Amino acid sequence: MPTYSSVSKVDVLIIGAGPAGLMCALWMARLGINARVVEKRATPVAAGQADGIQSRTFEILDSFGLDQIWRESTHVKEATFWDPDENGKIHRSSRVPNNMKGLSRFDCTGTIHQGVIEGFLIRAIRASASVPSHPEVRIEGNIAPSSLHIDATLIDDQDAYPVMVTLKHFDENAQPGAEELVLAKYLEFRLRGETTAAIWGAMDIIPVTDFQAADIRVRSMVRSTSGGSLMIIPRENKLVRLYIQLTDSLSTNGRLTRSMVTPKVLIETARRILSPYTIDFTYIHWWSAYRIGQRSGDHFDKQGRIFLAGDAVHTHSPKAGQGMNVSMQDTYNLAVIPTYDMERKLVAKELIAFDRKFSELLSMHSAKDIMETSVELKQFFKKAPLFTTGIGVNYASSILTLVDNEAHGLAKYTVPGKRFASCQVTNHSDGRIWELHHRTPSDGRFRIMVFGGNIANDEQRFAVNTLGQWLGKTLIPRYPLINICPIVDRRLQTVRFQSELMTPMIEIFLVHTAPRSQIDVLRDVDSTYHSWHPKLGWDYDHIFTASRVATEDAIQSTQSVYEDYGIDEERGAVVIVKPDGHVGMVTSVAAKEARTRICDWFDGILQGLSN
Amino acid sequence: MPTYSSVSKVDVLIIGAGPAGLMCALWMARLGINARVVEKRATPVAAGQADGIQSRTFEILDSFGLDQIWRESTHVKEATFWDPDENGKIHRSSRVPNNMKGLSRFDCTGTIHQGVIEGFLIRAIRASASVPSHPEVRIEGNIAPSSLHIDATLIDDQDAYPVMVTLKHFDENAQPGAEELVLAKYLEFRLRGETTAAIWGAMDIIPVTDFQAADIRVRSMVRSTSGGSLMIIPRENKLVRLYIQLTDSLSTNGRLTRSMVTPKVLIETARRILSPYTIDFTYIHWWSAYRIGQRSGDHFDKQGRIFLAGDAVHTHSPKAGQGMNVSMQDTYNLAVIPTYDMERKLVAKELIAFDRKFSELLSMHSAKDIMETSVELKQFFKKAPLFTTGIGVNYASSILTLVDNEAHGLAKYTVPGKRFASCQVTNHSDGRIWELHHRTPSDGRFRIMVFGGNIANDEQRFAVNTLGQWLGKTLIPRYPLINICPIVDRRLQTVRFQSELMTPMIEIFLVHTAPRSQIDVLRDVDSTYHSWHPKLGWDYDHIFTASRVATEDAIQSTQSVYEDYGIDEERGAVVIVKPDGHVGMVTSVAAKEARTRICDWFDGILQGLSN
Repeated sequence: MPTYSSVSKVDVLIIGAGPAGLMCALWMARLGINARVVEKRATPVAAGQADGIQSRTFEILDSFGLDQIWRESTHVKEATFWDPDENGKIHRSSRVPNNMKGLSRFDCTGTIHQGVIEGFLIRAIRASASVPSHPEVRIEGNIAPSSLHIDATLIDDQDAYPVMVTLKHFDENAQPGAEELVLAKYLEFRLRGETTAAIWGAMDIIPVTDFQAADIRVRSMVRSTSGGSLMIIPRENKLVRLYIQLTDSLSTNGRLTRSMVTPKVLIETARRILSPYTIDFTYIHWWSAYRIGQRSGDHFDKQGRIFLAGDAVHTHSPKAGQGMNVSMQDTYNLAVIPTYDMERKLVAKELIAFDRKFSELLSMHSAKDIMETSVELKQFFKKAPLFTTGIGVNYASSILTLVDNEAHGLAKYTVPGKRFASCQVTNHSDGRIWELHHRTPSDGRFRIMVFGGNIANDEQRFAVNTLGQWLGKTLIPRYPLINICPIVDRRLQTVRFQSELMTPMIEIFLVHTAPRSQIDVLRDVDSTYHSWHPKLGWDYDHIFTASRVATEDAIQSTQSVYEDYGIDEERGAVVIVKPDGHVGMVTSVAAKEARTRICDWFDGILQGLSN
Repeated sequence: MPTYSSVSKVDVLIIGAGPAGLMCALWMARLGINARVVEKRATPVAAGQADGIQSRTFEILDSFGLDQIWRESTHVKEATFWDPDENGKIHRSSRVPNNMKGLSRFDCTGTIHQGVIEGFLIRAIRASASVPSHPEVRIEGNIAPSSLHIDATLIDDQDAYPVMVTLKHFDENAQPGAEELVLAKYLEFRLRGETTAAIWGAMDIIPVTDFQAADIRVRSMVRSTSGGSLMIIPRENKLVRLYIQLTDSLSTNGRLTRSMVTPKVLIETARRILSPYTIDFTYIHWWSAYRIGQRSGDHFDKQGRIFLAGDAVHTHSPKAGQGMNVSMQDTYNLAVIPTYDMERKLVAKELIAFDRKFSELLSMHSAKDIMETSVELKQFFKKAPLFTTGIGVNYASSILTLVDNEAHGLAKYTVPGKRFASCQVTNHSDGRIWELHHRTPSDGRFRIMVFGGNIANDEQRFAVNTLGQWLGKTLIPRYPLINICPIVDRRLQTVRFQSELMTPMIEIFLVHTAPRSQIDVLRDVDSTYHSWHPKLGWDYDHIFTASRVATEDAIQSTQSVYEDYGIDEERGAVVIVKPDGHVGMVTSVAAKEARTRICDWFDGILQGLSN
């Protein structure tokens, strides 16, 4: 047995401090799990690489309080399509929104430098570690794994450390050849994928151009007969990302290799495509040439102990801005471990199929091909957001996702497996309007959203209170308390007090449709919805109204939240949301069987935890 | 002449690191002025004190990129009035909005701990100092001034340091009795005011109460016959601020002194006022008792070198949440030095008058008085936001404020002297919607907002372009370039490049009403509105549309920005905004005399600077 410079244990070892690894680390930090991140690079990424963030990724970042990333991003509002006219000269054939109405409160695409995103994630991880009860999640550079072994005899023992990883240190002070041994319960791993096929170039420049009508500041897809295709994505700091199709004809021997590609080759190709418009730059931020590869991994988890995410399991071209997003969504989903493999594999397969079609449509050469695929490209583009934004992700039926025909009629647009959408509701006590997502941050809890309907109606109020009583007296005490990270709540203007840090793993909300003035919460509503604490008094933060009756101050939102969720405004519905923000199940408020369903669903997931 | 431990020079010395001093320091930091802050306290304030922030203060903080303070504040949405009924039992007599529609995009009142605000200001000051060209603004604790002298012979010399201040150090390492001498060009000073008259108590507690229908989470004014008056202000972290009227009857000898007031006295008084509802606490964050004093300083500046702000010039009761706000607005205004004394003195006088009336109305004792003043209190409350929010502040006519009857018809709701309101406009190039305030941060520049009207009309477009040409070729080159702090722009997704740091002191915007699709900015609009830079190409960030024509993506705002400003949608108007965000003058787009007016106005202020 070799000697090691050190031997240590950690619950979760994360290899790679890219966006996917850091997203995983942030979850661990928030849940108070002992974790460590090691990264080959010495410092954060400086430029280029993945930079497009999609709606669902923005929602996830927001759920950790990182909404600042959205505010600092460039929002891509429109797309234009440029095709050759009958004389072969490019012209704008259409201008369309780059968004799909009602999909998310965040635009489909924002662009921001990967280094900025990593910086926000690292600061959030450090802030979580400032909680005394939470172990620090260390992030270390200049370290890479050199070997990996799983002790198969230990994999069923929850207290054991079956994953053995040796780590090599590359910093100046490291002894040459010295290796460290880490024993871990779980390993999160990111591998670089292989690439094949055609070459594309990418560059971030400040363009000096007369490209018509400022179309350089929207997402523009230009397909020319003179030089191939090009896509423009506006970015922060006056930058523009150009994706440029390169052809073998650029090479004298008819076979282009990556080493032949230079910024000069890229800008000259761009110039040919955009002709007669001119384009140049004096400032170039980053550039690269890459071969497109589309590959999806077979197994996302190995023996329930090693989880692959990001590039390791799905490599593809970057043009649709998907890589970083799906990777971050992969590791965000990791917190719900039992179904990770199944749920995310499907997403990876869809991603590859999407990418293949998109690349194909953008790679047409002849005027005839371009013309014939023009309508197809636009239609493809129109439907793409459902998938590219991550909002359309719909996990298949499983222990975590109760697909249930009875429930479908209760909440038509709130489908088990899909992410629970955010709507604006009004706090019953103080009248402030909130995004529901802001009241349900990523802190590891399940949420039961009781859409109570019209509780000004006696019968309906009775049903809501009966359910509330059962939730408070029977369901909640069934499962142990968990430890919540107080940091999460800073944006909610609450610091959790010591006595609140241990909290039920299920949080209950009531969203009703009665006018605020008709309901006195202390008198009319069961105390499960506004719990009593001997030191802190009544709770005022879990009852909301979606009433369309404007209050005197007319600040009340008049938008129909219930309509957006597809819920009946009188009878309501119960929606259970998992810690990853996806809908777990839907059931009715009044029916007695609803309680059995809820109880069965939780018992199925929290096996062995129930009291 | 005594010996000093050190002698140093600084352009601006700021005494006091409260919100007013730090606001002043932030301006200095952003403008790159050599400044220093000294503060008697060793550490930031821990609790209590001023905590209410008003709309205009939120706007000012936002103009420095500190919008996070707004998001972390509790927003006070409603107010209730509780009066005795015919049996003397308190009941809610009305519930009204705590906001005035259209006043500001920020609520009238937000509450957040003063220490949090100071923390944000300090971090922003430090961030500005990270710019290489900017001197660091030091903030030092444990230091207080011991003497002050002005050398009258030097006050007209702009390069001299006529203000001499000796500073005493109180930290552990300081030599006892040692004093430091500082020579300054300007001094910003904050003095504690005197207090007199009646005693009020204030306390921040987590209430354990059954006060009806959650009225504990809105601003509630309770006037009882049983124990006096009380005001409730909801705060962050489940806290509630109570202002409690104390009467001499609480004392055995008929004369209450501050030393007799304890938390026990306060909560018992509150209980009597709120009876039959109960109130108690186990957690108290802060409490205080104070005598109301209402005093306004005579001179805000001494010989143009010493500026008094904050408590030094207006002491009053804290119930309306005014002190910190007016103080911060004082020092924010300091950047426009010549008229500081005149402009802010008027504001101070209004503040005192407001406060006196408000205290009087809340101090009624007999049921008869309460009943008779009930309507008056509510009416007073309804109009109060115009003043309390700081939005109503209207500086009188002066060199900086051209009050001009001709202009009034051009922009009815955009009045010289008042702050220039923010509206949502759409970037012509990329379709993103922005608050105009977000495009005009506090960086020391003047702004000419050319509301160009319908530039799809040939004649109007010609007028806009003629004006643009004059602005670009004649007005802008008339004044020297200034150095802009790059930090300010981070939220705008632009880092200023070295070649942009020297920039004209006047920034030009075009906000037109033509549909985006009808205007090609590169072809149709004079280049003053989208300036050309040899290295950075065309500018895409200064032309906006307020068009009500929805674009294909229906993202376009349909709200009429021009209507809000009172500007004609066809003919437009020109609005000049000062560095403090207040309107300087309004003139027409097409009239030739407009150019003379604009030129005269700038020459009047920037005397001697013109080339």
